[in-house]
Amino acid sequence: MSDLDIDRLGRRAEAMLDELAAISEEPDRLTRRYLTPEHKRAAHLVAQWMAEAGMATQEDAVATVRGHYPMAGEAPGANAVPRLLIGSHIDTVINAGKYDGMLGVVCGILAVEHFRDAGRRFPFAIDVLAFGDEEGVRFPTVLSSSAAVAGAYEPRWLEGQDRDGVTLGQALADYGLDPAAIPTAAMSRDEALAYVEIHIEQGPVLEHQEAPLGVVTSIAGQFRTRVTVSGMAGHAGTVPMPLRQDALLAASEMMLMAESIAKAHPEAAMVATVGQIGVKPGAINVIPDRVEFVLDLRAASDAPRHAALESFTARAEALAAARGCAVAFETYHDCPTAACAPWLQDGLAASMESLGLAAPRLVSGAGHDGQAMARLTDFAMMFVRCKGGISHNPLEFATVADMGAAVAALIRFIEGFAPSRPKT
Amino acid sequence: MSDLDIDRLGRRAEAMLDELAAISEEPDRLTRRYLTPEHKRAAHLVAQWMAEAGMATQEDAVATVRGHYPMAGEAPGANAVPRLLIGSHIDTVINAGKYDGMLGVVCGILAVEHFRDAGRRFPFAIDVLAFGDEEGVRFPTVLSSSAAVAGAYEPRWLEGQDRDGVTLGQALADYGLDPAAIPTAAMSRDEALAYVEIHIEQGPVLEHQEAPLGVVTSIAGQFRTRVTVSGMAGHAGTVPMPLRQDALLAASEMMLMAESIAKAHPEAAMVATVGQIGVKPGAINVIPDRVEFVLDLRAASDAPRHAALESFTARAEALAAARGCAVAFETYHDCPTAACAPWLQDGLAASMESLGLAAPRLVSGAGHDGQAMARLTDFAMMFVRCKGGISHNPLEFATVADMGAAVAALIRFIEGFAPSRPKT
Repeated sequence: MSDLDIDRLGRRAEAMLDELAAISEEPDRLTRRYLTPEHKRAAHLVAQWMAEAGMATQEDAVATVRGHYPMAGEAPGANAVPRLLIGSHIDTVINAGKYDGMLGVVCGILAVEHFRDAGRRFPFAIDVLAFGDEEGVRFPTVLSSSAAVAGAYEPRWLEGQDRDGVTLGQALADYGLDPAAIPTAAMSRDEALAYVEIHIEQGPVLEHQEAPLGVVTSIAGQFRTRVTVSGMAGHAGTVPMPLRQDALLAASEMMLMAESIAKAHPEAAMVATVGQIGVKPGAINVIPDRVEFVLDLRAASDAPRHAALESFTARAEALAAARGCAVAFETYHDCPTAACAPWLQDGLAASMESLGLAAPRLVSGAGHDGQAMARLTDFAMMFVRCKGGISHNPLEFATVADMGAAVAALIRFIEGFAPSRPKT
Repeated sequence: MSDLDIDRLGRRAEAMLDELAAISEEPDRLTRRYLTPEHKRAAHLVAQWMAEAGMATQEDAVATVRGHYPMAGEAPGANAVPRLLIGSHIDTVINAGKYDGMLGVVCGILAVEHFRDAGRRFPFAIDVLAFGDEEGVRFPTVLSSSAAVAGAYEPRWLEGQDRDGVTLGQALADYGLDPAAIPTAAMSRDEALAYVEIHIEQGPVLEHQEAPLGVVTSIAGQFRTRVTVSGMAGHAGTVPMPLRQDALLAASEMMLMAESIAKAHPEAAMVATVGQIGVKPGAINVIPDRVEFVLDLRAASDAPRHAALESFTARAEALAAARGCAVAFETYHDCPTAACAPWLQDGLAASMESLGLAAPRLVSGAGHDGQAMARLTDFAMMFVRCKGGISHNPLEFATVADMGAAVAALIRFIEGFAPSRPKT
């Protein structure tokens, strides 16, 4: 460890995260949605840091910032250079913490900077990727920017609208990008050796195990299903209770039923969440006739997740019918459980152990860009302990020491990375 | 009935309602909230109709349009002329029907026009009032325009905000009015002989009884209580179900519990409604930490209504506590049951019977400006049958024949109105 000053690396990471967190759509809290002017400012800042760390930078067709650290002996302008991909995202939820996503990007930049300062090159290039659409907060898409790199972008996503009615396609154009160029963002399977991401855990496991870092074994699969309940509007004062077809009460029963399904499957680490709900016509004195919400359903394995969604839709139909309402479902996101490659897991574990740290293995309940990148190449994730497991909240926190350890472990991982290892 | 052409009166009413319904904030549906430009356009149209019917018109300090039909021998500019007040409202809910409120204003204008055409004056003036804030859709107020006439305006209402953060005081100023002049809108008890309102029933009773018109005995009392539930935000994928403090699930249980309370009291014609709900932070993948909704609770008598609200708040606190959430209540509207004056009820019944119609008596489950006007003078209401009891909905419908009968009954009522009758 003589060449690594973990405290300095952690403080560098913290300073960079503070600078990124100051770029927000809202004055008193951190909100930075995909393709907003604030996203663009953050992207420019990240590109500047990459350049300062010795990388060639570019912006791809979906606004992902890419920094390229050349391999040993790489000719300028060489094509299809084999590369290790290190990435995470710089978009945020509404009222976010400052670590989610950004930490992974910053760790990648600091690792490359370390090698640039040491004058070291490897028999592979290193690309640091700063994705812009991981949280899925603005458009009804998830992981669209990593899907573009993986060559798995779906053109129908361009029609999705934000709450102001702006389509994703329009937002890309407004940002200065050409949706027709999205296929050019795809990387070839030959050049992508592996994808590795550092991320805060966003859960309580590492804190309970008193471990700064952990190795992710898989990312839980996830559904996002839009549920639309239709009833009959009427005057709040004159329609007797038994004659009502109240879409909001039907939706309330459905949300509670989804909770009960998830609670019944702790063995699958199942979680069900409704974070948004729209009610029409939306007047205090009118019985709601249309309610729309999105069910976010996740589990550590796919079979119980599929069974849970099936159970939810069947029971929701019965609940709707009992109230004279109708219900429709649109599952617009179905991401299977994504397994991290064992050879990369082992590499991450070895790098932690070389620093004298434990390397506990754990499942990720949260979705990550690795799910999309798995279509392109083997992937793995390193989790960093966060306080109280709190995330998607301003109280999100990781210590300087833990962040420094993450950068150091990434440096050790890259030093030990053998691109000739057989893929799983 | 020789002097009354009921069909013609009904067709006149329908044509006027069509013209009013064309003035909307939204292209494909009727929405006209208090103090919007569309409200102003509707107010100008009503004032023009009043003038054409022989009335002197003015706009009061809260945008109520007032038409004055002078008493027999009234000197120009006379003060404190005793007057019969006939009114209703011209604001609407979002996606409204075209009869709610507007019909009462139109009936008043057509009745006065009848007397002007016949050259008849009475020993009292007739004022037709077109109120602007009955639905309470834009600001957290109800019946503020009739309260101003009744001298019961509460200055704190001016601080209430619409969903864009515009206060009522600011909206009045933007409309061209002076909030400081609101006390001048108050009428004196001596000049207000009685307040009578015609309104569609908005319920199914008259249709079931096959009666075009009905006499209201009382208006149900009403609470509007803002309920704010606070929990803890967190990542939708990583916080295990048992550790969540989900404010939306707590709110769901509260809404269903309110329904069960109302359903348990059919003898009090109790109804409970939640028509609007706000969820924060409002992202699909974040557990909600703050939910706000308004409970609209009504009953035909006050004691069960008070008991129901007490039960709701106690049980809501227990539901919140069971989820590690907190809940707060703000009852910003508490309107007691308002009894219609028996002498006016009898007068309305006699007018219907003079037309050969039944005069069934019924309770109003909906709130009306009469509740505020009761603070100033005796009041009564005539209900007009509407199809299916549907209201606050584009399917709202009343027949030409029933509307014509309503105008005719109002004409007969005015002819028989004896202002010297003792007040209750």
